[in-house]
Amino acid sequence: MSKQVVLTGIKPTGMPHMGNYLGAIRPAIDMARDENVEARFFIADYHSLNSVRDAGTLRSYIYEVAAVWLAAGLDPQKTLIYKQSDVPETFELTTILMAFTAKGLMNRAHAYKAAVDANREKGQSEDHQINMGLYTYPVLMAADILLFDTNVVPVGKDQVQHVEMAQDIAGVINHNYKEDLLVIPKAQTSENLMTIPGLDGRKMSKSYDNHIPMFLPEKQLRKIIMKIVTNSQGLEEPKDPDTCNVFALYKLFSTPEEQADLAARYRAGGMGWGHAKQELFEKLNAEIAPMRAVYDELMADTTKIDAILADGARRAREVASRTITRMRKAVGVA
Amino acid sequence: MSKQVVLTGIKPTGMPHMGNYLGAIRPAIDMARDENVEARFFIADYHSLNSVRDAGTLRSYIYEVAAVWLAAGLDPQKTLIYKQSDVPETFELTTILMAFTAKGLMNRAHAYKAAVDANREKGQSEDHQINMGLYTYPVLMAADILLFDTNVVPVGKDQVQHVEMAQDIAGVINHNYKEDLLVIPKAQTSENLMTIPGLDGRKMSKSYDNHIPMFLPEKQLRKIIMKIVTNSQGLEEPKDPDTCNVFALYKLFSTPEEQADLAARYRAGGMGWGHAKQELFEKLNAEIAPMRAVYDELMADTTKIDAILADGARRAREVASRTITRMRKAVGVA
Repeated sequence: MSKQVVLTGIKPTGMPHMGNYLGAIRPAIDMARDENVEARFFIADYHSLNSVRDAGTLRSYIYEVAAVWLAAGLDPQKTLIYKQSDVPETFELTTILMAFTAKGLMNRAHAYKAAVDANREKGQSEDHQINMGLYTYPVLMAADILLFDTNVVPVGKDQVQHVEMAQDIAGVINHNYKEDLLVIPKAQTSENLMTIPGLDGRKMSKSYDNHIPMFLPEKQLRKIIMKIVTNSQGLEEPKDPDTCNVFALYKLFSTPEEQADLAARYRAGGMGWGHAKQELFEKLNAEIAPMRAVYDELMADTTKIDAILADGARRAREVASRTITRMRKAVGVA
Repeated sequence: MSKQVVLTGIKPTGMPHMGNYLGAIRPAIDMARDENVEARFFIADYHSLNSVRDAGTLRSYIYEVAAVWLAAGLDPQKTLIYKQSDVPETFELTTILMAFTAKGLMNRAHAYKAAVDANREKGQSEDHQINMGLYTYPVLMAADILLFDTNVVPVGKDQVQHVEMAQDIAGVINHNYKEDLLVIPKAQTSENLMTIPGLDGRKMSKSYDNHIPMFLPEKQLRKIIMKIVTNSQGLEEPKDPDTCNVFALYKLFSTPEEQADLAARYRAGGMGWGHAKQELFEKLNAEIAPMRAVYDELMADTTKIDAILADGARRAREVASRTITRMRKAVGVA
């Protein structure tokens, strides 16, 4: 059986938090180690351009996100990593796809509809402050996917529709030219979608300001972990691990044995919240510290990232140029 | 004073007719001979993909339109001619422009609004059968223009809005990055917009089926000219040149002296419609015959067109890569 091509897009929007690491980055890197998978990762920098209008900020975001994934264990020898903007075939394929994309399909895109609803609620005109980059993003994303003969796209539930749109557009083109020009991709949503709790127990999210940034100097990391909200039980009282935010995060960094051990100490009483948080800090830091060292090194001198992305671009364009050559012939411009 | 960059886009949609030749092709080629002008022509093949869904048809249209312009006197040594699809920087610039284009601007595009109106009249939903290629075409056209630091875009009145949109988008980007990154183009509409009469006296148009194709074998050309509608005056009657379709076309291929001479013979009587048409045929054929010979030669072996377009692509990409490099740095993806 040939390997499954699995494509993951990463939008550069600044330092990821622990929720991103546990929910997306760590599982994606585990997936990339699967021998039956040919994993490809791309940094969707032109997606960020829709909201990041400052060159310096966008440039930092791109370096940060590349450094984070490399530090988290992505092996650029084995796994392709490239910037969307370094593969110009993407934008030519986007132009081809546009000709076969019904405008009605775009009107149904969740992100666009949400923006329209928000405008209506504020009494604004439907398309107020909506740019064409946002509106056409599903076509660009379809090009990202279809350019690489992708079989599987791991996505959150909110992104499934984008993969369905890519299927739809590819189907229209294959049907029109009576040829399997484009591979129809499948969406893959993880079955046990973890919700990673933030400092206050709600889902960890930058917008709730309850997040733990992925890479912080050790002291700051410890300080922020000490802020996790607990109940007001005293030191001696027996505690319930199953309703505890500290324990919920601890579980994500420890073995079942370690979890059973800490749970027993919770229930026995005599362990305060400060101790529990210190245990979490140590576990979390043990996993993150080596990554942080790599991250800091990469960010201190970004030429290594430049070289990795340049090599990724070269390899990505080998695949991309085959697809675009096939498409150019098929539609008749070559 | 530096030369004005003048850009003309040509949509490949099959053999042009005499109306296209007289109203667009001949004046554009005259303009390209102006020493103060750096004229550039491109074949907007991805524009045609929105309606031409057969590869063989699109490929023929591209060759036909290239052969027509070369036969009509475009000098590919002096004047740049290239295919839009051969300049992939166009599509990357389109992606950048999208992020700075308000969706509201696209909603106001004449071509899109006309399509919506037509749907409403038929009781269809607004966006019925409208594809994203049509909807986003003004952004692609803005990229065509802005990529080449174009100063002037000669357009028909129906296309002025597209140039205004390019101005608008370029202005937003220059303002955002506080730098004159993109040259603001101007639209140029010809002052004496000629309406070229067709066989029945209405404006010559394929949709009225009253057109004279630009290149026809001589016998067929004569035959079609003999079909021009005249009044029923007999051979001996004096005739009015100013209300005659034959004379109106004759004027477009002759000197003032020749026109005065034919007008005098009209007014003197004794000249039938057949004679007038024969005079027109001879004049028209004298101008067209050498072009037809070149056209037939180019179409008999298209490798010469391939070579010209390949050379054009190479030269166009020299300009295009400078612009896209500047833009990539300015927005922060490079």
